[in-house]
Amino acid sequence: MAGEDAMLMERIHTCAAAAPGGHYAQAVGYQGMLFISGQLPVRADGSHSADQSFDVQASIALDNLLAILAQANCQPGDLLKVTVYIVGIEHWPELDKRYARCLGEHRPARAVVPVPALHHGYLIEIDAIARHPRSCS
Amino acid sequence: MAGEDAMLMERIHTCAAAAPGGHYAQAVGYQGMLFISGQLPVRADGSHSADQSFDVQASIALDNLLAILAQANCQPGDLLKVTVYIVGIEHWPELDKRYARCLGEHRPARAVVPVPALHHGYLIEIDAIARHPRSCS
Amino acid sequence: MAGEDAMLMERIHTCAAAAPGGHYAQAVGYQGMLFISGQLPVRADGSHSADQSFDVQASIALDNLLAILAQANCQPGDLLKVTVYIVGIEHWPELDKRYARCLGEHRPARAVVPVPALHHGYLIEIDAIARHPRSCS
Repeated sequence: MAGEDAMLMERIHTCAAAAPGGHYAQAVGYQGMLFISGQLPVRADGSHSADQSFDVQASIALDNLLAILAQANCQPGDLLKVTVYIVGIEHWPELDKRYARCLGEHRPARAVVPVPALHHGYLIEIDAIARHPRSCS
Repeated sequence: MAGEDAMLMERIHTCAAAAPGGHYAQAVGYQGMLFISGQLPVRADGSHSADQSFDVQASIALDNLLAILAQANCQPGDLLKVTVYIVGIEHWPELDKRYARCLGEHRPARAVVPVPALHHGYLIEIDAIARHPRSCS
Repeated sequence: MAGEDAMLMERIHTCAAAAPGGHYAQAVGYQGMLFISGQLPVRADGSHSADQSFDVQASIALDNLLAILAQANCQPGDLLKVTVYIVGIEHWPELDKRYARCLGEHRPARAVVPVPALHHGYLIEIDAIARHPRSCS
């Protein structure tokens, strides 16, 4: 563990998820864990969806999350902790339903955090920590 | 570390804390760390407390956190990072006092994050990352 | 990894960053990772900056973060995941610019989380998880 290999950081990038809109990587792997940046409902092709329903926005944000996981050789079942930032706590039930459909049987730790607004007028942003065998020393 | 054992994920569940109200586990252990879901002031028996004072709500949320830690064979002294979401920054001093009484000498890293609202009208939600020897490979 | 050494937690403290204003440590190191508490734009000498511009406040919060990293024998390039809480999503572009100048080439995972208010009337708070070789077993 204390060797230099243990210290390697891996930057993840995939065109199958929205490109970073600022100074961040889509995800960083280190020592068996993957840290995934906050994913907004920007489509992989860069088009926006802020005029769509909450459910559509949630789907797109989750699609970005899953695409980044896949690029890192991970699956939804590798998620350890997910934080979901939403505008409007009234979307909680809809979020939980869409989220469950997306993750299947796996139930990582989670926090749902209402916020007053999100970038570009979006209603949802999702970040996560996942198991990442590839960066395990 | 790179063996299969290192990759095991442990789901924590205890009846001494509020049952998950959605698609998440109370906590997930992995590779020496425990990821605890956002805990609201729902009592272990499922009864709600949104009509109670901030201090009572903080106590119940912290009780859930401690019960989950105990179930995972951990103690308050194992907490590494705590994030406290509160409605109303004016509750900060009250939170800090209750929190200190609950944690004792141990002072993990912490962020207090004001939010516009929380599920069921609550004033506080707490999630955490803790040291979890049991899942250590 | 399973030995007792692997379980050691290291508390970080430096006078080069704002002292903790409540029941928390500036940072805690454990098993190769450093958990840094939410940093407000309080200067290392304890003086406040809530009357300053967003950019000045962002600089001070980042200075605190970097000073804590340095105390832990880490560098900006060790940051894995940064969470930036801001009051006013309109500050996003200014934040990203200041943040990029501060971090240089390195782009950790990141989430920007708008909040309705922050302690002492501040406009920004930053917490982070970083690579921490010193606590690596």
